[in-house]
Amino acid sequence: MTTLPGPPSPELLYLLAGDEEDLLAACENLRPADIADALNQLPVEAAARVVGALPFHLAVQLLDEPELDRRGEIFGRLDEKVAVPLIEAMSSDQKVELYRELDENDRIRLFHLLDAPTRDVLRLLLSYPPTSAGGIMTTEFVGVPATWTVEQVKRHISEVGNVKETVYAIYVLNPRDQRLETVVSLREVMVANPAHRVAALGDGRRPVAVKPLVDREEVARLISKYNLLAIPVVDDAWHVLGIVTVDDVIDTLISETTEDVQKFGGMAAVDEPYMQIGFRAMVRKRAGWLCALFLGEMLTAAAMGHFENEISRAVVLALFIPLIISSGGNSGSQATSLIIRAMALQEVQLRDWWRVALRELPAGVTLGAILGTIGLLRILLWQGFGWYNYGSHYFLVAETVALALVGVVLFGSLAGSMLPFILRRVGFDPASASAPFVATLVDVTGLVIYFSVALLVLRGTLL
Amino acid sequence: MTTLPGPPSPELLYLLAGDEEDLLAACENLRPADIADALNQLPVEAAARVVGALPFHLAVQLLDEPELDRRGEIFGRLDEKVAVPLIEAMSSDQKVELYRELDENDRIRLFHLLDAPTRDVLRLLLSYPPTSAGGIMTTEFVGVPATWTVEQVKRHISEVGNVKETVYAIYVLNPRDQRLETVVSLREVMVANPAHRVAALGDGRRPVAVKPLVDREEVARLISKYNLLAIPVVDDAWHVLGIVTVDDVIDTLISETTEDVQKFGGMAAVDEPYMQIGFRAMVRKRAGWLCALFLGEMLTAAAMGHFENEISRAVVLALFIPLIISSGGNSGSQATSLIIRAMALQEVQLRDWWRVALRELPAGVTLGAILGTIGLLRILLWQGFGWYNYGSHYFLVAETVALALVGVVLFGSLAGSMLPFILRRVGFDPASASAPFVATLVDVTGLVIYFSVALLVLRGTLL
Repeated sequence: MTTLPGPPSPELLYLLAGDEEDLLAACENLRPADIADALNQLPVEAAARVVGALPFHLAVQLLDEPELDRRGEIFGRLDEKVAVPLIEAMSSDQKVELYRELDENDRIRLFHLLDAPTRDVLRLLLSYPPTSAGGIMTTEFVGVPATWTVEQVKRHISEVGNVKETVYAIYVLNPRDQRLETVVSLREVMVANPAHRVAALGDGRRPVAVKPLVDREEVARLISKYNLLAIPVVDDAWHVLGIVTVDDVIDTLISETTEDVQKFGGMAAVDEPYMQIGFRAMVRKRAGWLCALFLGEMLTAAAMGHFENEISRAVVLALFIPLIISSGGNSGSQATSLIIRAMALQEVQLRDWWRVALRELPAGVTLGAILGTIGLLRILLWQGFGWYNYGSHYFLVAETVALALVGVVLFGSLAGSMLPFILRRVGFDPASASAPFVATLVDVTGLVIYFSVALLVLRGTLL
Repeated sequence: MTTLPGPPSPELLYLLAGDEEDLLAACENLRPADIADALNQLPVEAAARVVGALPFHLAVQLLDEPELDRRGEIFGRLDEKVAVPLIEAMSSDQKVELYRELDENDRIRLFHLLDAPTRDVLRLLLSYPPTSAGGIMTTEFVGVPATWTVEQVKRHISEVGNVKETVYAIYVLNPRDQRLETVVSLREVMVANPAHRVAALGDGRRPVAVKPLVDREEVARLISKYNLLAIPVVDDAWHVLGIVTVDDVIDTLISETTEDVQKFGGMAAVDEPYMQIGFRAMVRKRAGWLCALFLGEMLTAAAMGHFENEISRAVVLALFIPLIISSGGNSGSQATSLIIRAMALQEVQLRDWWRVALRELPAGVTLGAILGTIGLLRILLWQGFGWYNYGSHYFLVAETVALALVGVVLFGSLAGSMLPFILRRVGFDPASASAPFVATLVDVTGLVIYFSVALLVLRGTLL
């Protein structure tokens, strides 16, 4: 027993997934998340057959896994006699997820077969946007009247524990109007005197709660900040509508990160795994931003056209164009990534923009001076050793490049750090300030800075 | 009662932080995470005075918050009579965090004053790297002998519940050799028959566990995949060394995301909030990568030097240089961000590189063809309407630009998608394949592609 068996290897799952019968036989020994992994590699018809053949309790656990892809398609292929009890037994947040994935026909067909409570829950939860607290909450939570004793609460949990999403946070309600009074943890219940009233256990503070329309990112931030296992979603009168649990929040954090990384890479967010998204969908997601950036970048052609005379008189200037504009883009991309992240973590607020600008100003000058010095030395060395001939005015050319680098890097740092503020101010996601977006913005200005410096330094000699 | 009071506003905390006395008076009504927020805005001497004056239980809760900045400096300023009991009462994972933050002198001075068990825990935990499971685990967990009944377990939890990091996962150990047999949730204990043996409650599967040197990102992935509240860290013989809880994992996910975003922006990871990191440290973190990229980008000057003759004969070619190389960079940055994320989520493995290449090949050609068409139309339109004169061979110029775009976008997509695989293959973090890194790589090649196409299309006319 010297190795950890742990979860099965991807290779094993892959082998199992090769054969429907083998997989079905192995399922009893696998965890639901692993079964999901294996099913994701089967054709959807085979996956549906496996789901239909699983023992009921295991099928419910499996379908409660958000990792299971194509749930909608699988349900579309299940017999109604199998599908309906499964939907009714799923936890309500996953029911809603499933309903969002079902195709139009299946949605209508199955809805009318469900029992009334399930229909009501679906109607309620589907009324909230999918990225809001209401859209990801579940309605199965433990609510107890404030008049109960600790002993009564324990007995209640031992009876209902199996059908609730979490039993570790207990919502203590006013017995008259059902408003939320306090939240008690099962830990507090366990260590308390059984004869005490449960309402007296809390810390006496108002519970941390959110309204249903609060964004899921804010929900994740609160759960993480206050180390909660679940957060209640309440209406204006403090009636508990549902709860969001910590494992939903982890899934949320992971999808939000994926979205942000993809946006930062300069494309629309892709909500499917890379290997599964269709070719057309992928090209569409990428082409949109790529074309927008291309149209923006066309301004460089216009800017260059403006300086065509200068280029033809001093072709040597053209040699450094990619070097200079890319340095601006790189410094801008650094500044943007710093600020986007600081905003996401709420380290920086909208009103801090000038404090950020005051930091980026000296940072940009310093970084620009460093690159400018390297650039200057590069040209002087190459000329000195005879590796390249930049003409008789090589020193002035080197000076132009060095000064332009200071200006461009400074502009890049400022533009890159301010863009997320501007985007947020006008109501966009600051994460849309992607590296390519900033680079495009800086390229055009970089050219103007470069040629303006050249006109100043080289007038009367090369220009 | 129509609004949610929820947590205090940043403005309130800011006001409180303005005055030490006010803050201290308000602390009893604030949650530890909010006190941390307020203290983060005070000078470190004042923060240390507040910590020293807080009631002991509240000070411990506050110091257990990883959100509290400058914990090391605060402890350096506390009286030893205050500091030592606080350290002993903190949870072990936070003790270790604190010890990593203390300066050399304080570390040695305080260590000898601590009690023996605390010293042992620190010695053990500090022996693991800070980003490993062992480095973030805590040693306070509930372990019970497999021979106990459910009733005994419940009684045990009601006695020790307050001093354990989590009571919701119960580790059932072999009473003879203390090896981990199974993991039972408190929920299972609550709903079980009190007379049954606790060892019989589990699902019969080997528990999911990790070794201490496993990376914290993998720990986060397992907790998230199997919806765990905690994961045990075990040695080769399955003795439980400690546990990592879900709230540590959320903090881990957030710091890893920050690291990845910053790396992707083309800089070394900054582990302090943007507003708090010193100016020199920030410039140093940014200058390193910026200089490396600059040196790489210098190859463009060499490439351009190689084509200086062509540029001087056909200056019109220079106009489209920024447009073409930036399109390559943008498509590369898209592809990289897609693949880095897919790798982080384990949707794509190292061995899948050729499947990715086979997807990126047609995607690159399609995207290149779209941009090429726009570029072609742009030049023909401008020439047609007389907005710019690209010379008598304008159609050949347009053709050159369009063909070069197909080549450059294709190369960008391929290079951008393959770079993370290459980096991982040689043992680097794929997230180091930043947008600026890819852009630099693609810029040099883009120039070569552009001028090679130009030589083919324009030979005998412009060149």
